[in-house]
Amino acid sequence: MDGWYVEKGPESDVVVSSRVRLARNINNYSFPDRLDSQKAREVVDNIKKIVLESEECKSYGFKFYDMHKLSSLDKNILVEKHLISPDFAIKQNVSGALISSSEQISLMINEEDHLRIQCLFPGMQLENASSLCNRMDDLLESELDYAYSVGYGYLTCCPTNIGTGIRASVMLHLPALVMTGYVRKVLEACGKIGIAVRGIYGENSEAAGNLFQISNQVTLGQDENEIISGLKNVVSQITERERTLRRELYMKEPYRFEDNIYRALGILKNARIISADESLKLFSRVRMGVDMGILKNVDSQVLNELILLVQPACLQKQVDEELKQGDRDRVRADMIRKKLRFDD
Amino acid sequence: MDGWYVEKGPESDVVVSSRVRLARNINNYSFPDRLDSQKAREVVDNIKKIVLESEECKSYGFKFYDMHKLSSLDKNILVEKHLISPDFAIKQNVSGALISSSEQISLMINEEDHLRIQCLFPGMQLENASSLCNRMDDLLESELDYAYSVGYGYLTCCPTNIGTGIRASVMLHLPALVMTGYVRKVLEACGKIGIAVRGIYGENSEAAGNLFQISNQVTLGQDENEIISGLKNVVSQITERERTLRRELYMKEPYRFEDNIYRALGILKNARIISADESLKLFSRVRMGVDMGILKNVDSQVLNELILLVQPACLQKQVDEELKQGDRDRVRADMIRKKLRFDD
Repeated sequence: MDGWYVEKGPESDVVVSSRVRLARNINNYSFPDRLDSQKAREVVDNIKKIVLESEECKSYGFKFYDMHKLSSLDKNILVEKHLISPDFAIKQNVSGALISSSEQISLMINEEDHLRIQCLFPGMQLENASSLCNRMDDLLESELDYAYSVGYGYLTCCPTNIGTGIRASVMLHLPALVMTGYVRKVLEACGKIGIAVRGIYGENSEAAGNLFQISNQVTLGQDENEIISGLKNVVSQITERERTLRRELYMKEPYRFEDNIYRALGILKNARIISADESLKLFSRVRMGVDMGILKNVDSQVLNELILLVQPACLQKQVDEELKQGDRDRVRADMIRKKLRFDD
Repeated sequence: MDGWYVEKGPESDVVVSSRVRLARNINNYSFPDRLDSQKAREVVDNIKKIVLESEECKSYGFKFYDMHKLSSLDKNILVEKHLISPDFAIKQNVSGALISSSEQISLMINEEDHLRIQCLFPGMQLENASSLCNRMDDLLESELDYAYSVGYGYLTCCPTNIGTGIRASVMLHLPALVMTGYVRKVLEACGKIGIAVRGIYGENSEAAGNLFQISNQVTLGQDENEIISGLKNVVSQITERERTLRRELYMKEPYRFEDNIYRALGILKNARIISADESLKLFSRVRMGVDMGILKNVDSQVLNELILLVQPACLQKQVDEELKQGDRDRVRADMIRKKLRFDD
């Protein structure tokens, strides 16, 4: 694996990654849910042609995926890597995805809208993600007739996306906020100012791995820069809070704090069977140890990679045999040991 | 530490150690509880003189401990090493102990009886322990006038020791019997045939570290050889049962079995804070892994040593500062990591 996520970004002790996505539709075509196969095929082919034939796009090494031809396993891998949405993976209409070689740029064609442009960057890089999205958007807009209203802005299938069509989000690692219980307050405060927060992995409200996605909910009445700077501002406050709490927890009981981190590493390096949930929990503790300078011999980018590799589809892809539930926990443990030994 | 316990004995995958002790008293002296200080001093001095001046005893490097002069810490260390009894450590009368340099032979003077001779061997070596006890006994008997009755045998303070005055015991490591719950049945069966079973460490009936001491209860009406061969027979059956269960558990779920063992090792090698109870539990899992050939790079004799070193008094002796409860768990974790790294 050599995607964007193995690079280290700014503020990466708390901000795992930044993502911006734009929703766009094409004039004179119904929204994908109402589109017949022939028209849907036209939309896919048009966008595919523009991207694959563009000189500028060649450097990104885009690859086209016809969603009808992709196996469920391969679709699930794209979902686990956040390159396509879970809804997109199970859609039955004519649809496709264009993904750059570093997996930094992905375009979904005929998801909820005709076009979704998404850019992913490590650490806090919302502006960079936004710029790259805009470049892709300009390039496509020069060839496509976007559905646009002077009053509303970009028209989208769902009214929550109308206007800028932008959704900016960051993935945050918030172990200290979770440990101290402050995360609940932060979630409430975010909700009041139009910022959505949700756990990335794990069921219900429990965020396995202490990973949270924070994103704007409003797309209308603010321009892109306002949306991004608003989100940045919130993230910066949460990040500072998280850092302060980590330091306080460490200073309060240094040995217990280190014990917690080292035991997590010890289990990861030795387990023979481990669930995805448990590994995410342990990665979180190890990651905090690395980010606070307690663990010197583990690379936090390996942890980014591992968060992906332990997911069911990514895990299945790494072995030849078809994995059953019990096998999966065994193969996962073997893979984690192999990955972590490199840095021992 | 270079005592008897760092050597490997027969059947050491289940039998940790064998112990034989003899209870003896001297004619014309009241039992220790009724003895005035002057008489008690005579008993101590007599036995001390015989042992320290004997040519045969010189090779054992006996050292005399005046119990009045020994600090509580040093007394507790002797208790933790099973060289003196807990009761002996808190006695206020004139008393002393003679302990050989390898800590294989210990003599308590004025414990419950005037003389207790004890020999400890690694693994299943009840006959060797008994022979060595008998040699010490013969040597002392040639100079002392033992209290002996033709009808009853050796007379002792407590009627449960009368006759041979012998107590033979073995320390067994029974993780599989505990895991499967069979240990309860074994305990019941032993009770019915006059064999006592008790956990070595841990409070109540819970045996921390899955270590059990099995010993004869009857001293009257059987000779020494019958007592020892009876106990050997019981131990041999328990040992076989334990081995069979270990194999069955391993074969049933090999990965889960190994996972359990490796995680224990991973925690011991990484923890920064650990209680005595938790370390004994983890030692037990690691020990089983070593004894079954699953773990190759850990020496089970290091584990024997660690079982002693994690006890409070032995732990305190290893550091200069006086340890409080919280410090103890930290120092214990550091010491375990240091000891286990040697074999990494």
